[in-house]
Amino acid sequence: MSDIQKVLDFIVEIEKLKDVHRKTRPVGLERYENSAEHSWHVCLAALMLKDSANQPVNIDRVIKMLLIHDLGEVDAGDTIIYASETPELKKKEQAGLARIFALLPEGQAEQYLSLWLEFEAGETADSKFAKAIDRVPPLLHNLHGDGHSWKENKVPKEKVFAVNRRIAEGSQSLWSLLEKKLNQAVEEGILK
Amino acid sequence: MSDIQKVLDFIVEIEKLKDVHRKTRPVGLERYENSAEHSWHVCLAALMLKDSANQPVNIDRVIKMLLIHDLGEVDAGDTIIYASETPELKKKEQAGLARIFALLPEGQAEQYLSLWLEFEAGETADSKFAKAIDRVPPLLHNLHGDGHSWKENKVPKEKVFAVNRRIAEGSQSLWSLLEKKLNQAVEEGILK
Repeated sequence: MSDIQKVLDFIVEIEKLKDVHRKTRPVGLERYENSAEHSWHVCLAALMLKDSANQPVNIDRVIKMLLIHDLGEVDAGDTIIYASETPELKKKEQAGLARIFALLPEGQAEQYLSLWLEFEAGETADSKFAKAIDRVPPLLHNLHGDGHSWKENKVPKEKVFAVNRRIAEGSQSLWSLLEKKLNQAVEEGILK
Repeated sequence: MSDIQKVLDFIVEIEKLKDVHRKTRPVGLERYENSAEHSWHVCLAALMLKDSANQPVNIDRVIKMLLIHDLGEVDAGDTIIYASETPELKKKEQAGLARIFALLPEGQAEQYLSLWLEFEAGETADSKFAKAIDRVPPLLHNLHGDGHSWKENKVPKEKVFAVNRRIAEGSQSLWSLLEKKLNQAVEEGILK
């Protein structure tokens, strides 16, 4: 099979991410978001917020990380950020990623698996920033959408603050603004 | 308003692209594709096919081009590639892009507008390749989906070949393989 044919098979396979449903609704839409359109959204969010990162980041690497960060969900499904991410689930995601990247021409898979592992570990400047950005759209969906996902999934405000505080590890200034918005949501009774 | 707040407004505004519907269905799905998930899909397609470009490309620029290439559709809507792209429509898309990029902090809009104009002109190596990749998923949707969009939109095979032949300007090897697949689709009666 030619290398290009292998990539075409990969392109068709990853399309399944368009059918993985997340737990928030995009602003103004009744339906739930899927992980493919979410991936696009966080890439542009990262690009436009890059100057707010705590440490200088390589935005091209960050974007690649975000393009692939949810691919493991094709096999593992989406898990809301407020649920515990078990080692079993992460293993399933990693196995899914390995299966999908194995469709690529020889010698390609490793670099992307390694980029995903870096993202998951969240220890480098690039991955800290990428992980921070990944949390922004669901917060905006809730803030602009009457806290629908917090309510539907019974997430108390303490958990919302505790989980999202980690945004500060990627961008202190971004977290400061979002923290204000969350406090306002508490005052307005959207977040309880 | 702080720069970060401006970007958050931008992030919410571009979310409307998730509600712009295209004319093909993703492989295996009953619903039509939206332009946000399509944008993600072509970014990863470009990344994985970069070595097939006729001329060396700056893949990071190509990905940025593809992340923003459809943003004008928030105001202008999606047009099938087989319809004539009128100057009026392009003006509407450009005005939409200008409106959306104007939400960004000062001094940001121009570089992205200029990147989009480069994409639209399709004269540089990067934009030729980006434009080629933009055509691949809809072809795969039709080839794997009984030519549904060609049939629904009454697109004859002559037009499918004529329009997609331009893929060769970005990647001759990619077009060669797709041309074979299209010929096979004609033999199978999927494309008439």
